[in-house]
Order: sequence, then C-alpha cells, then structure tokens
Amino acid sequence: MSSFTIPSTQRALIFDKFNGPLEVRQLPISEPEDDELLVKIEYSGICHSDLHAWHGDFDYACICPLIGGHEGAGSVVKMGAKVKDWNVGDRAGVKLINANCLNCEYCKTGHEPQCDRIQNYGFDRHGTFQEYITIRDVDAIKISSDMHLAKAAPVLCGGVTAYKALKEANVKAGQIVVITGAGGGLGSFGIQYANAMGMRVVAIDHSSKENHCKSLGAEWFVDGFETSDIADHIRKITNGGPHGVVSFAASKKPMEQALEYVRKRGTVVLVGLPKDSKILVDTTPLIFNAITIKGSIIGSRLDTDEAMEFVARGIVKVPLEFVKLEDIPSVYERMKDGKVNSRVVVDFSL
Amino acid sequence: MSSFTIPSTQRALIFDKFNGPLEVRQLPISEPEDDELLVKIEYSGICHSDLHAWHGDFDYACICPLIGGHEGAGSVVKMGAKVKDWNVGDRAGVKLINANCLNCEYCKTGHEPQCDRIQNYGFDRHGTFQEYITIRDVDAIKISSDMHLAKAAPVLCGGVTAYKALKEANVKAGQIVVITGAGGGLGSFGIQYANAMGMRVVAIDHSSKENHCKSLGAEWFVDGFETSDIADHIRKITNGGPHGVVSFAASKKPMEQALEYVRKRGTVVLVGLPKDSKILVDTTPLIFNAITIKGSIIGSRLDTDEAMEFVARGIVKVPLEFVKLEDIPSVYERMKDGKVNSRVVVDFSL
Amino acid sequence: MSSFTIPSTQRALIFDKFNGPLEVRQLPISEPEDDELLVKIEYSGICHSDLHAWHGDFDYACICPLIGGHEGAGSVVKMGAKVKDWNVGDRAGVKLINANCLNCEYCKTGHEPQCDRIQNYGFDRHGTFQEYITIRDVDAIKISSDMHLAKAAPVLCGGVTAYKALKEANVKAGQIVVITGAGGGLGSFGIQYANAMGMRVVAIDHSSKENHCKSLGAEWFVDGFETSDIADHIRKITNGGPHGVVSFAASKKPMEQALEYVRKRGTVVLVGLPKDSKILVDTTPLIFNAITIKGSIIGSRLDTDEAMEFVARGIVKVPLEFVKLEDIPSVYERMKDGKVNSRVVVDFSL
Amino acid sequence: MSSFTIPSTQRALIFDKFNGPLEVRQLPISEPEDDELLVKIEYSGICHSDLHAWHGDFDYACICPLIGGHEGAGSVVKMGAKVKDWNVGDRAGVKLINANCLNCEYCKTGHEPQCDRIQNYGFDRHGTFQEYITIRDVDAIKISSDMHLAKAAPVLCGGVTAYKALKEANVKAGQIVVITGAGGGLGSFGIQYANAMGMRVVAIDHSSKENHCKSLGAEWFVDGFETSDIADHIRKITNGGPHGVVSFAASKKPMEQALEYVRKRGTVVLVGLPKDSKILVDTTPLIFNAITIKGSIIGSRLDTDEAMEFVARGIVKVPLEFVKLEDIPSVYERMKDGKVNSRVVVDFSL
Repeated sequence: MSSFTIPSTQRALIFDKFNGPLEVRQLPISEPEDDELLVKIEYSGICHSDLHAWHGDFDYACICPLIGGHEGAGSVVKMGAKVKDWNVGDRAGVKLINANCLNCEYCKTGHEPQCDRIQNYGFDRHGTFQEYITIRDVDAIKISSDMHLAKAAPVLCGGVTAYKALKEANVKAGQIVVITGAGGGLGSFGIQYANAMGMRVVAIDHSSKENHCKSLGAEWFVDGFETSDIADHIRKITNGGPHGVVSFAASKKPMEQALEYVRKRGTVVLVGLPKDSKILVDTTPLIFNAITIKGSIIGSRLDTDEAMEFVARGIVKVPLEFVKLEDIPSVYERMKDGKVNSRVVVDFSL
Repeated sequence: MSSFTIPSTQRALIFDKFNGPLEVRQLPISEPEDDELLVKIEYSGICHSDLHAWHGDFDYACICPLIGGHEGAGSVVKMGAKVKDWNVGDRAGVKLINANCLNCEYCKTGHEPQCDRIQNYGFDRHGTFQEYITIRDVDAIKISSDMHLAKAAPVLCGGVTAYKALKEANVKAGQIVVITGAGGGLGSFGIQYANAMGMRVVAIDHSSKENHCKSLGAEWFVDGFETSDIADHIRKITNGGPHGVVSFAASKKPMEQALEYVRKRGTVVLVGLPKDSKILVDTTPLIFNAITIKGSIIGSRLDTDEAMEFVARGIVKVPLEFVKLEDIPSVYERMKDGKVNSRVVVDFSL
Repeated sequence: MSSFTIPSTQRALIFDKFNGPLEVRQLPISEPEDDELLVKIEYSGICHSDLHAWHGDFDYACICPLIGGHEGAGSVVKMGAKVKDWNVGDRAGVKLINANCLNCEYCKTGHEPQCDRIQNYGFDRHGTFQEYITIRDVDAIKISSDMHLAKAAPVLCGGVTAYKALKEANVKAGQIVVITGAGGGLGSFGIQYANAMGMRVVAIDHSSKENHCKSLGAEWFVDGFETSDIADHIRKITNGGPHGVVSFAASKKPMEQALEYVRKRGTVVLVGLPKDSKILVDTTPLIFNAITIKGSIIGSRLDTDEAMEFVARGIVKVPLEFVKLEDIPSVYERMKDGKVNSRVVVDFSL
Repeated sequence: MSSFTIPSTQRALIFDKFNGPLEVRQLPISEPEDDELLVKIEYSGICHSDLHAWHGDFDYACICPLIGGHEGAGSVVKMGAKVKDWNVGDRAGVKLINANCLNCEYCKTGHEPQCDRIQNYGFDRHGTFQEYITIRDVDAIKISSDMHLAKAAPVLCGGVTAYKALKEANVKAGQIVVITGAGGGLGSFGIQYANAMGMRVVAIDHSSKENHCKSLGAEWFVDGFETSDIADHIRKITNGGPHGVVSFAASKKPMEQALEYVRKRGTVVLVGLPKDSKILVDTTPLIFNAITIKGSIIGSRLDTDEAMEFVARGIVKVPLEFVKLEDIPSVYERMKDGKVNSRVVVDFSL
C-alpha cells in the first residue's frame, strides 16, 4: 500500500456570492470520516452546470460561498477506519451525486439519483475545484489503472448522463436513435455511446457540426435549423421514424418536433433543461401511436461504472483541452459564447 | 358441427349522413370470404365512440352511410373454405380493430393497433349494429362456452382498453395506481382489472361516484372537483405518490395534475382523448424525477383474450343494461346527458 | 423519542458444537456501532434451516458455538451516532442476509443476496434466538406500527423467499403457476403471494394437504405422490401447461417433472435444495420449447419490504404457533418428524 | 411490375428414402394459392440439419421422399390473388419455419417458432433445393434490393438462430458473452452479432479456430479441449464470469461447464442439440447464484428481419462458397468430415 504526504492546506477555486469573483485561495483540507476516502484530485472536468452554479440560476439550490466542480478524478491518499473495498493509491472518481441514503426504494433498486437525501458536489456541497476532497467510500467510482485519469473526469457527469439517457431510450441494437444537440458535450458522448450499444444514429444540430458528428459515428446528419419540415424529413430517412430520440438540446422546439417524428411505439427521452421548461404535448397522436416520453437526469453508480468502462476500453473517446485551476473564469466566458468544443479539464499539476 | 339457417336479409341500424336519422333497415347479409367467419351477433355493446362516429367528430375518418358498433358477441354460423381454427357454432367476439396486415413490425410483435392497415368496425367499415357480420378468422376473439355472451360484448372495446392501459402502467402487484374518470365505463373496468392484477387503487371522479368506485374495489376515493391541492393530497395518502396513473378522464386538467403527483420514476398512461388535445408538460420535474408519460389506445388480440378471461372467470364484473336495436338513438341521447351508468348492450333477441 | 432501560445481560439459546446441547444461557449484550441499531427481539421465527445450522449440514459454512435464528422482529432500543433514518422505538425486522457491501454490481442493482460479502444471521454470525441483537441500519427492515410484530417474523426469511421466487417466475396476472411443496411453510406463503399478484395456482403436495392448500387460495390441487402421469394431467388442467412453476419441494423428481409439464416459453424457478442436488435436464424439449430454468435463493431488502407489506395489509395471512425460547429443541424434534404445520415463533415475553 | 416466364418443370434435388441416393430430377412447379408467392430460388444455403434430414435422424419428423433445403433466397415471379404487401420482382427469403397459425398465444406475441401448427421447409414440406417454391406471403422474408442475394440465404436459418440466442442471453452492451462452438457456422455468425450488439466475446473452440474467431471479433479465445480448469480460467479472464453464455457446441460437457463459470445472476442459452440430450445440472450453485438456463431454437419472422438487416448493412459478414445443385452430396460428405469452414450456398445459375 502506498503512502502519501498530505499538506495542511490546498488550492481551491471559490466564490463568495453568485456571479462574484472566482478566486483561487489556500484552504484547509478535510479529514475523512470513518467511511470516507480523502482523494487527491488530479483532474476536474468543467461542466456547463458549473457555470450555472456560479450564476446561481440552476434548478437546484446551491450553497454560497461555493467551491464548484463535480467531475473529479484522482487517487486515494487517506481512508477512514471502516473503509473496506478501497486501498490507499487506488484511483477514484468524484461525481455529482453523493450521500444517497442507500436505504430508500430508489437506492434499493439502483436509482440513487431519485433519492431524497442526495447531495451534489459543486452545488450544495463543496466540489472538485480543489486539490483534496473527501467522499464516502460507496460513492466514489473505481477507475482502472490502465486508463488515463484525465479521460475519466468528464465521464463522471457528462458521459454518464448521455449513457443513461440512451439506456432509457428503449432502442435495441440495429435500431435508430435521433440525438438532438448532437454536436455538444452530451451529444458527442451520446453518438459514441449509441454506436457502442449497436444503435444507428441520426445527429441533429447546427450545420457547422456535421463533420464533427459524422466523425464520431453518426450515420445521418440533419441540420436542425435550416431543414424544412424536419419531422417529415426524419421519418423519411428513418423509414417511419426513429425508435428513440434523446433530446440533449435545451430548447422546446426540438422536444416538440421529436414527438412528431418518433416512430410508433417509440420513446423520447428528455435530458436538456430548457429555460422556460413547459412544452406542449399533443395527446391525440401520442395516444394513437402509443408514444412514450421519459425524463432522465443522470445515472446511478452502476451506470457510471458502465459508462466509465466504455471509455477505459477506448470505445468512447474523450477529446480533451487542459487548463489550469486559475483558467476556469476564462473557460466560463468561452462557454457563454458557445466557444468550447471539447471537454475542458483542469490539470492540477499545471 | 352445428348447422344454421341463414336468412337472405337482416336488420341493421344505419345512418346516411353524420348526425342524420338512425334507422333500422332490412339489409343483405355478406358472404364470408375464404378466410372469414360469418358471425350471428347476439349482443352488441354501445360505446361512447359510436356516438362520435355518428357525429362524425372522431379523430379518425369514418365512412358514411355507416352501420356503427364495435363490441359484438355471437356465434359462428358459416365459414370460408380455408378457415382452420374455428367451427360453426363457436362463440366469437367482433372487436374494433381488424384487418391488421399480420406482417409489419407492429403485427409481428403483437402490437396490431399500430399497424398501418387496420380497419375499425363501426368507423371505416360497417360494424356490429346488424344481425350478421363477416370477420377474418384471425381477427375474431374466442369466447368460452361457459361465459354469458352479453358480458363478453363490452370487453371487446371498453374492457380491453382499460386492461391494456393498466398493463402499460408499469405498476407491480402491491403498488398503487390512480385511475381518473374512475366512475365511468373505462374506469369501472379499470378499478376491477387493477385489483385483479394486485394493484391498490385510488379512484378519482365526481363525489357522486364514491360509493360506486369503492364497491368495485377502490381503496381510496378522491373527489376530483372539490379537493383543494389534489396533488398534495394524493402524494400524502399514497406516501410519495402513486407508482402509476391511468388517465381515462378526457380532459386536460387531470392529465396535468397527474404529472404533479405521480411518484418519482412513475408512469402516467394517457387514454382519454380531450377535445383540445394539447397539454402543458413541465419538463423540469419530469426530468429530475424520471417520470414517464405513455399513450395507450386499445389492446391487441392477445390483450383482448386476456381481458376476456378475467371476465369469464368472474373476477371482473360487467353490470349490464339491455336495450333493443331500435333504442340506440335514445341511448345516444342519454350518453350526451351523462346519464349512462352501466354498460348498455343491444340484445338482438329483443 | 422513547427511552429504554437495557440490562447488562440477556437470555440466548446457544450450542457449542453441531448437534450438541441447545442451552439457554445468560450472555452479554453487544453495543451498536456508529451505523448500527440495537434491537430488542420480541419474536423470532423458527425456520427449517435453523435445524440445518444446528446439524451443521447446510450448504453454507456456520460458526460454532452459534446462536441461531434469522427471523427476528422487535423494537429499536439504542442507536449508533451516525444512524439517520431510524428512531428509538421504531419497529425493526432482523433478516437472514446482512452486511452486504452496498458497492458491488449486485448490491448496486438490488441483488444483495448475491453479494460476496454477505453475512447470515444464525449461520456465520449470531442470530435472533437472543433478546438483543445489533444490526446495521441499512440492513434492518422497517415494520409498520399497525402490524402484529409476531406476524412480521416469518416473513423475514420464509415469506420473502416465497415472494421472490414468484417474482422471478415471469407469470403475469391471470396466468397459471404451479407450486410444488405447496402445503409446507414456503408453499403456504407462496399460494397466498401468487394470488395477491393475480396468479392462478395449481398446488402440488401430499393428498393430506389438499384442504389446507385450497383454503389458502389454490384453484387446483394435484396429489404429487399418487397421480399417474402427472405431467400429462397438469398440462390438461392448465390447457397446455402452467406459465410458471415454483419448486419449493426439496427433491429431484418434482423438479424434473416440472420441466416436462411447464408451458412452452414458461419458467421453472428452483428454490428447494435437494440433498443430492444434481438433476437431469433433457435439453431437446428445453430448446424446442424455449423453456427457462432459474435459481432463486432469497429476496433483497426491497423484496422483503414488499413481502412485508402484503402481510401488513392482511392480504397474506401467517398462521402462528407461539413457543418459549426453551422450547426450540422440541420444535426441532417435531420438524424432523414433519409435524410442524404453521409457522412457529418464539415469543420472548413467555 | 416485372413479368417472368415460368417454365413448366424445374430441377430439384430429391431423395426417396433416408440415406438413399440424392438425385437431381425434373419436377413440376407448384401454383401459388391466393395468399402465396411463387419464388424463383437463386441461392440456397446448405445447413448441417439438411444432412440430418437426409439421414432421418433429426429430432423432428421428416417426410420422405423429400426435397431438402431451408435457406432460400430469390425473387417473386408470381403471386396469388389476395397477396397485398408484395410485388412480382421483389426479393424474398424462404426460411425454415412456416405456416404458423398466426392466431395462437405464441403467434400473437411474436414467438411463432413455438406455434403448434408450424411446418418446416426441407423437413415436413419440400424445401429450397429446387428452382421454384411457393410460400405464404406473411412467411416470406423481405430482402432489400441493395443486398447480395447469396448472402441472405444463410441468414435464414444459421444467422437468425445465432442472433436470437444472443437476444435471449440477457447480456447488455459492454458486458461479456461466452460463445461455445465459436468457430463453427452458428458461432461465426454469433461472434459478429454479439459485437454488433455491443457485447464483448469470449470464443471457445478447438485451438485451430483461434485466428478465425479473433478475426471475426472475439476479444478472448479459449481452447475448449486443452485448457485445464476451464471454468476457473474463464472466471479469471472475465473478472467473475461472463454475463451470458451461448452454447452452440452440440455436446454435453461444454453445457455443464458453462453452468460452472457463468457469472452470478447470469444466463446460459442452450442451442446446440447434443445426441444424448440429458445434461446434469447442479441445482445448489444454480439456486445460490440465481443462474438462468434457457433453450432457444430459432428466431421469429421479426428476428429474421433484424438478423437480415445487420448483414444487409455489412455489419455481419457471410463468407461464402458456391456450389452447384448437383454438388450437395459431396458437400454432405465434407460436412461429415468436419471440412466445411464457410457457408456453402447452392448457386442455381451454375
């Protein structure tokens, strides 16, 4: 078992009020409790929702001051007395959702994201934009030793969210799934996971994303902004409509369109949260065609393990851009301008 | 094998234009084709959608002139040369949906109601308000000899629609289902089928229906019109919301309320078709709580067999009111006024 | 929150070597750890496998000396510092399987009985034949306050085992299940749970159990010892074979027969462990008829909650016989002679 | 619509008694009935079970004299009067199982291979070793116009059998399946279909097949004859056992081994029919580990459509060897000697 020297303080990016300055400060390091690990974060993904947490405009209460971040990958450097399935030196992922009660009807069936007691790192609990973090042993995700740690980070929120939505889409291998917002962060994961599950992919996004989507494995690309009668077009190329739709695009129109073109008995999975969240659903075709609409928010611990393994095996690629902890504010600026194409990851060694 | 004397003409209730006179006339009897049965109808249920067919305001094209009716029960009196699994004298049910292609992806998986080639008796093909009708052998439903034929009739549309919706609701035995419009025709079937499947039932309807619903097996009754904060009330009595909701009430408000009170990871099955069919769906709670919405229209041949067997076994009761063929217009009048409580069935022997 | 006076010692039934004397001794009471409850056992069911544990002939390693028992129902009298979802005074069930890691692929999907780290009360850890026992908070089963505690006890192993097997049988409401060993402890639970799930039951057992099985809800009874060509007989009464079979009888012949009479595409669930455990399976009919064989051992925490709720609601009855802790040896003697008909429960107040 | 000149006689390979001479004779051509197609066979696969039909030693009654063959691909040259979904000139596949009643509980749920009324081309009805054959419209399989007809032929029995078994194996994308007999005809299809469904494959066969299996996509290869403690070895490389096993090898030992190494809660699908068909199943580990055993025989019409589409898309390759109708006897000789590596297909134009 390895041994690590743990300093008394660490660097962390924190803000004291919503939209206030994002500053790197020297802060104390928590002690792991009996059932906790202390993880030295080596990489932390930067997610769009981190920007929302800073803005304080997320559909979820945030604490303030707050250390954001919820896609952390690193190594266990210390453990509580009762930890059983981990060793110091093991590689661990720190994901968004934690502190599930493990004892309610949702936790008992592997649906921890619906547990009433969850806490979210980087929202209602300090997150992974710091060098050291504590996490309960059963919440941390095992990362295999032959995987690049930086690639693991974005899987812990973006990857697993895309993967889970596809699992919920009820699309079998050989059948067709439409992915909206296909060129974005979730969509880029989604195209690859869908292929890995044997699905054929129709990617919908702005025309500038066509090459990107096709290079990731989309069989068809549809311009979501310029195509006239998009429902008719998609029904035609898919010979009756896709068996499933995964809606990552966070706006209402693509959601409502999906209900028009999805195949009879097909499923539309909603993931992206539009600002004005109410959509109009025409119940008559929904009833005659036996359509299903499903919400999907993020995956469970098992979903995360599975999503991670596809990346570890090299089946799903994660194009990365590395930045320093201090660079996060400028990344947020680029996010606002829609200028982030790959997954941006903080490299704490920089 | 029995032998039957078939007359050259028969009585049928027909209208020549939508909303026009409903007249009983003497009309010719069809000859069964090679793969068809000729069924002597002994009882025919009268369904709310027959009224819509006469009004010509259904979400489905109707022929005109039209003999309505799609819940017919009777006996096989003649058969085409290639019929294999039937005998003259067998009891047969004539249901709404027929003429499925048996060869598309929907037919091949037992989802005939989604087949593109279906015909609907009493809508785009003459129905069961006549004494003799032809039906393809594979479309007719076997009715066991120990079952009262009159009870079989309403199962062929109302019963199977209620049963199928419950199958789609993803509610296990011991879990809770809310049924809206519980005191109506579909709802009265629904409460009983839900119980037969081990589900616990919350019935929602007008307060006048409370005794009726409870006598059929509802464990809880909620007044859908006078209860303040109905979502909160239902979540409370069901300890977190019902696992499923089956929405028979053909209006928007109960559908939208269902999305508020359904349990996390629960399913809302929409059946009743509201006039103005667009409902507002708030996607944020749908996504966070992983809610499912599903449309359900009617059941397959197998669903009908299953629904029929529960009635044959006496597990599901069908309270009947018998009328003559000539009485149908007055039954339509009572339907408009909401004055029909039991299933009304034409008895052709009257 | 109630407060309880906890004595320093307690009564417990213990044996020092397999088949050795079963003695009631005064022993110390354990202190609950941070995440544990101390439960005062008021009732403890006596299960056939307790007898095996004493004989040391179970297919599972046992410690020795051993306090047996694994169906305990009582009240929480003390809690560790980190327990969250319990209060002193709450009623709690102590079941067979505990100490699941909560972190493996089985625990993460609600299949804790397959976890590698499980401990079994009354086998490799002291069980419920003592007045006070410690149990981890997430392992204890909540028992509602309106339920008779004594009825809860036998559900914790026998009830949930029967219920789980039926869940695995893939039999829908309205379909038919055969239960072998139907008149025994598991079978008596099984008939009732099957009915509660809407299944129709064929009970197989010795002819002396016919009235017992029918009074519990079996629709058909078949004498498993005297019926000639039992497979043919069962296929006949079930019109092609039952959709599922749950095999509680711990002998090979009924298992092999089940494979002969089960319906095409049906499922045979094996539960009872025959001494000589190897059965002959004819693969040709298995393959042509697409038959499924499944092993089922006991249920998860959620299965136990569900099984308990059917009893709490009075849907499943538990006929009880009460004995004193000192009576256990004589109960074992009666078990050996097959003279136990109801569930025998130790009442610690006697 | 194209028009075809149909001769009055045709060439067919027939035998008059089991093991008797296989002769090409000039025989009359059947007329299609009202609901039938007349298909001009262009290619017919030669399957191992054709050899058994000739030997008369199959587990299924055969007529005699018999024209064998059940993997025919060709074009519709004439149609009965009531055929609706086909046109003359369409490409059609003639598969093993036909004449399903379309009206029993199996047909109604897409499980036609379990229908009591099925007929098997090449066994109890003349098969595809003739130039022209009639087939009911709903039984023929559509073959897309951009697919090489010869590649379609072996899918109609071998391909769909392998594909169906994998669907039954309950293995998700990313999980591991073991395929026994992986280097043979079914196995070679199986490896590719498994990959197409996202599964990771362990191939088991004779060491001489290692390169073949790996080139088709197996991630691991295990020598099924020389590996000592094969169960232990497989559990090790799969980190706890494969989630599923598909047993194509028609012998008992690999079936029994599969039950030892399959993962807890895993599924073993039996396909290959061993001569002496009874295997020994140890119920104790089956029960403790909640293992499932399933028989699988061939796929439905929908399974065949799906299996065909993977080949049409080029995802699953079919290496072919072409022979003349007269060559079939010599192919049978090579089959007996185990000297057939690719799918052998009769090309009727040769």
